[in-house]
Amino acid sequence: MKLNILGCYSATPRTFTNPTSQVLEINNHLFLIDCGEGTQVQLRKHKIKFNRIKHIFISHLHGDHFFGLVGLISTFRLLNREADLHIYAPKGLKEVITLQMKLANSWTNYNLFFHELTSTASELIFEDEKVTVSTIPLDHRVYTNGFLFKEKEGERKLDINAVLNSNIDVAYFRKLKQGFDVKNNNGEIIKNETVTKPANPPKSYAFCSDTAYNESIIPIIKEVDVLYHESTFLEKHKSLAPKTKHSTAKEAAQIAKLSNAGKLILGHYSTRYGDINTFKIEANEFFENVELADDGKFFVF
Amino acid sequence: MKLNILGCYSATPRTFTNPTSQVLEINNHLFLIDCGEGTQVQLRKHKIKFNRIKHIFISHLHGDHFFGLVGLISTFRLLNREADLHIYAPKGLKEVITLQMKLANSWTNYNLFFHELTSTASELIFEDEKVTVSTIPLDHRVYTNGFLFKEKEGERKLDINAVLNSNIDVAYFRKLKQGFDVKNNNGEIIKNETVTKPANPPKSYAFCSDTAYNESIIPIIKEVDVLYHESTFLEKHKSLAPKTKHSTAKEAAQIAKLSNAGKLILGHYSTRYGDINTFKIEANEFFENVELADDGKFFVF
Repeated sequence: MKLNILGCYSATPRTFTNPTSQVLEINNHLFLIDCGEGTQVQLRKHKIKFNRIKHIFISHLHGDHFFGLVGLISTFRLLNREADLHIYAPKGLKEVITLQMKLANSWTNYNLFFHELTSTASELIFEDEKVTVSTIPLDHRVYTNGFLFKEKEGERKLDINAVLNSNIDVAYFRKLKQGFDVKNNNGEIIKNETVTKPANPPKSYAFCSDTAYNESIIPIIKEVDVLYHESTFLEKHKSLAPKTKHSTAKEAAQIAKLSNAGKLILGHYSTRYGDINTFKIEANEFFENVELADDGKFFVF
Repeated sequence: MKLNILGCYSATPRTFTNPTSQVLEINNHLFLIDCGEGTQVQLRKHKIKFNRIKHIFISHLHGDHFFGLVGLISTFRLLNREADLHIYAPKGLKEVITLQMKLANSWTNYNLFFHELTSTASELIFEDEKVTVSTIPLDHRVYTNGFLFKEKEGERKLDINAVLNSNIDVAYFRKLKQGFDVKNNNGEIIKNETVTKPANPPKSYAFCSDTAYNESIIPIIKEVDVLYHESTFLEKHKSLAPKTKHSTAKEAAQIAKLSNAGKLILGHYSTRYGDINTFKIEANEFFENVELADDGKFFVF
């Protein structure tokens, strides 16, 4: 997986910082997560191939998380996109987008599917052979979901020397990868685990923004490899967090710890703070493996 | 007057070019004209004081002319704006903006007035002591207006030496500026034109984008000092102009010539062209005083 941070600051776009948007590369998908104003310019700057984006996930309908979407949809049209585009977002987004298309008298020449979300329980919203995406209900001022991206268990890997030494016909390789025992050319039963190695462990990524401190997400994101959790504030402004339904860096770290996450990435910083490194220092008191999101930065895991 | 070009390229925002937006400084007003995606970042980059913008004029509801507006309105709220904001735009914009506010459950804490336009004849939409703004009905794929900004005739200026030599009491200075003859301290009638000079000639600016070649605007913009006229295409692609209801550089120059404009500023270039100087070369064959808009450039007149 590769996570490209296009924008990770709260509230308004500024000269050098962008509102929330990320691209997750996972098993040949480019999943776009949130789409603040300026996202299409960030995609160009970071040379991400627009047309490979087929699925867009919108957490909630505050402007800093979706005001760039209508423009991106229009740009896809101008670029003569033909591939289907799927958008997973809170109910209401379809009306916003289609109203603007109607007023402009310009419809997409590709299929645009809205998957409008209303459930307050976690639900599976995307699945293919290799990946699932589920919602993570968050606690914010409007209806908001995070998203949990999980690879499925892959196939076992052949230990090619052991396979050749065991005199197994190539016709059985597929079956070996699927975990079955097979017969070799001498008619002997070969135990699967003697000629294969376990699959790479499936990776997972949880995106949680925007949200107040909310322990009810822990069962959903338990053991996640990488957790992106918003940290709008530092503890010195902790009174603002519950009022605005945001989190502090300490609270993000506590969620990471209670979930036993492999790594915590912080973001959605209030622009009142000059040096974002203070977020890492605060979170590190409660959780060791902390990294800071920043516009243009990417993480491979 | 000072015209700040924030963006002047057609269609989509790109890494180094922005969709349409301009700020016209005129008699202490900052009028924002169109508001493509990224306008608020351009305002910051060019250090234009956000809160001085009290009137926004939107030509039409294609995305490259208004997708930045909802974000700007939100940012004004986050900056605790208190001043009224007036938006002059085609009917439909109010619904787009208020729908998004409703979904975000966040309303402005300042007064937001929508002046929705539907007339296909030129109409006066703003007037104060010193300035008028009228619409210029344009010919585009959706309902579109240009805008004509005109200073009113100012007061005559005192020729202070002549005034002192004529022995006129200071109490009459105001009357002199207003053009009246007055009596001096000796009881003699002093003809106004012997002690005053004409007011500075009132300036005018016409913004015409987007539009097909349309001679019916000429009576409205006749003798305008500065005409901004779109030139999406060059003549070598002139077959595209009527189809998309845009103009070529030659056509913009013809409108400037027929209107007897003082200066023509070209803009709204299609991004298919590498060097915008070709637009000036083409227009110069038909009209002499041509300048090229470009993002970040400003014109004083």
